[in-house]
Amino acid sequence: MRGTVLYGPGDVRFEDREDPRIEKPTDAVIRIAATCVCGSDLWPYRGLQPIDGPTPMGHEYCGVVEEVGSAVRSVKPGQFVVGSFATSDNTCPNCLHGYQSSCVHREFMTRAQAPMLRVPLADGTLVPTKDVPPDDLAPSLLTTSDVLGTGWFAADAANVKPGSTVVVVGDGAVGLLAVLSAKQMGAERIIAMSRHEKRQRLAREFGATDVVTERGDEGVARIVDMTNGIGADSVLECVGTPESMMQAVHCTRKGGCVGYVGVPHGVELKGEDLFFAHVHLHGGPAPVRRYLPELIDLVLNGTINPGKVFDLVLPLDQVAEGYRAMDERRAIKTLLRP
Amino acid sequence: MRGTVLYGPGDVRFEDREDPRIEKPTDAVIRIAATCVCGSDLWPYRGLQPIDGPTPMGHEYCGVVEEVGSAVRSVKPGQFVVGSFATSDNTCPNCLHGYQSSCVHREFMTRAQAPMLRVPLADGTLVPTKDVPPDDLAPSLLTTSDVLGTGWFAADAANVKPGSTVVVVGDGAVGLLAVLSAKQMGAERIIAMSRHEKRQRLAREFGATDVVTERGDEGVARIVDMTNGIGADSVLECVGTPESMMQAVHCTRKGGCVGYVGVPHGVELKGEDLFFAHVHLHGGPAPVRRYLPELIDLVLNGTINPGKVFDLVLPLDQVAEGYRAMDERRAIKTLLRP
Repeated sequence: MRGTVLYGPGDVRFEDREDPRIEKPTDAVIRIAATCVCGSDLWPYRGLQPIDGPTPMGHEYCGVVEEVGSAVRSVKPGQFVVGSFATSDNTCPNCLHGYQSSCVHREFMTRAQAPMLRVPLADGTLVPTKDVPPDDLAPSLLTTSDVLGTGWFAADAANVKPGSTVVVVGDGAVGLLAVLSAKQMGAERIIAMSRHEKRQRLAREFGATDVVTERGDEGVARIVDMTNGIGADSVLECVGTPESMMQAVHCTRKGGCVGYVGVPHGVELKGEDLFFAHVHLHGGPAPVRRYLPELIDLVLNGTINPGKVFDLVLPLDQVAEGYRAMDERRAIKTLLRP
Repeated sequence: MRGTVLYGPGDVRFEDREDPRIEKPTDAVIRIAATCVCGSDLWPYRGLQPIDGPTPMGHEYCGVVEEVGSAVRSVKPGQFVVGSFATSDNTCPNCLHGYQSSCVHREFMTRAQAPMLRVPLADGTLVPTKDVPPDDLAPSLLTTSDVLGTGWFAADAANVKPGSTVVVVGDGAVGLLAVLSAKQMGAERIIAMSRHEKRQRLAREFGATDVVTERGDEGVARIVDMTNGIGADSVLECVGTPESMMQAVHCTRKGGCVGYVGVPHGVELKGEDLFFAHVHLHGGPAPVRRYLPELIDLVLNGTINPGKVFDLVLPLDQVAEGYRAMDERRAIKTLLRP
């Protein structure tokens, strides 16, 4: 088969790779229905995160099980499945606490931008649907694999509750789906920080009640001004830069919560700043596996339509253009179809 | 009157100062029953925190109201009161959220090592007892003003619940009372990190089930080893150095909580470390006012005896020796009696 490989900054190739196969009895091999490009793929694509030689790419996936190893019990060939970007046995103490993305046997998936994919720890990583869903639901189901699950974790980590005032920092696909997540959790007011008209529109469609275009100190001042002078209950950090992180901390009221899911790059938090900010801070790699059953249901019963974040659909072999479009911010998120 | 003034590193003087008086209608003046030296007083005493000229010291206090301003409604002369080290109006949005130590009108108290004290915002800062309590309860009541309230906040911020496994980093008075707090909140296992025999004994008396003498990476390895390989549910950071903070983060299980109350000095948290540590982080200046009514009750009804942290009692005019004894770790905490 052919799959996606990153060779260096800006150099994405779709080229011959070995077919995946069952390597361990706990593996499954799935035929990809849809995959996509993640905002986090752009870090190495932009040369901001070193890679160690040619690197197969992709960690968001859904599709039909082709084959399972001898020890796999909970999924079988022919079933449609979604899995997390991080594998998990779903039985270790960290998994039992709901932190499957820190499973003691965790591996990060990295070969999903391809027509076929080996998934380790299939029983603990994949969630099957009852029937094979209609193909037009594949994009929304795909989002549960990472981008929606990550936005959901941002809202959950920031303790969004019915009636909350929420700020979302970052208008990438994760930020937009963090808006959707906050709305689902009953937030009363959702302020999206965005200066891109198209993204603002989608944020409003997902439930944003306000849009703030200012950034940095000016952005913080606007939020404080809009929130009784004290800041928001919950702030969802969906970028990962030093600026976005401090913007999030300073938009939060005393005793409020920052949920951060943007993979930090160059972020350093001064202890004294944090101490007097008086916020709760929680984040990390989203424990998508914890949320998958609920999120899949919300998609299948039509409550949410997170697949709207895909504003560019390409055949898988044009994956390089998919990266380019996201890098240049021409696309919010690129869906790839084998 | 005479009061305590810090002139520079190691230079504490008990000298003539103006008598406190009502300056604003919301003030009270109280006659101190007991005051003490705080671990945080040692930062400037050791020259690790600059001071801007001679600085009156002390922020832990209880005593009898002498006089109140014309606007004060909730306390009156003759009543015994305890107040927080941070003043609060107890009506602003931050106060109403339970973060009185970030009251929009907050001032940090700093003249309590004296026989008389002016307390601003008396209605929102002081809590009176029903009767004047017997003098032998004054030490325990005094602890609710800061050191116990701060240990309590560490446990609360770290989400200690019945059955929790808890680690306490720091064996100063705050750390020891964090042990007591975790015990009160129902922790099943409380591991005190301490290498001082006298403090270990008090930690065990307050409820510690285990003592770990290792520090740094070795200490972390011991904790992980003792907790099913995954770390503790709740870790209470009661020091404030870069080493203690990272020790706390790395002792915590994925999804667990770090409550940090040691005022950070030189602490910088790397975003990526925190991200993959997957912990909840909450802390700051303890909102003592929130806890005062409950903690005063626990003292008055004899449930807890936090005053045991005072292992040195001196007349107020020997305050300089009180600082010295704590600086040299000869004393855990010095009680001062006017």
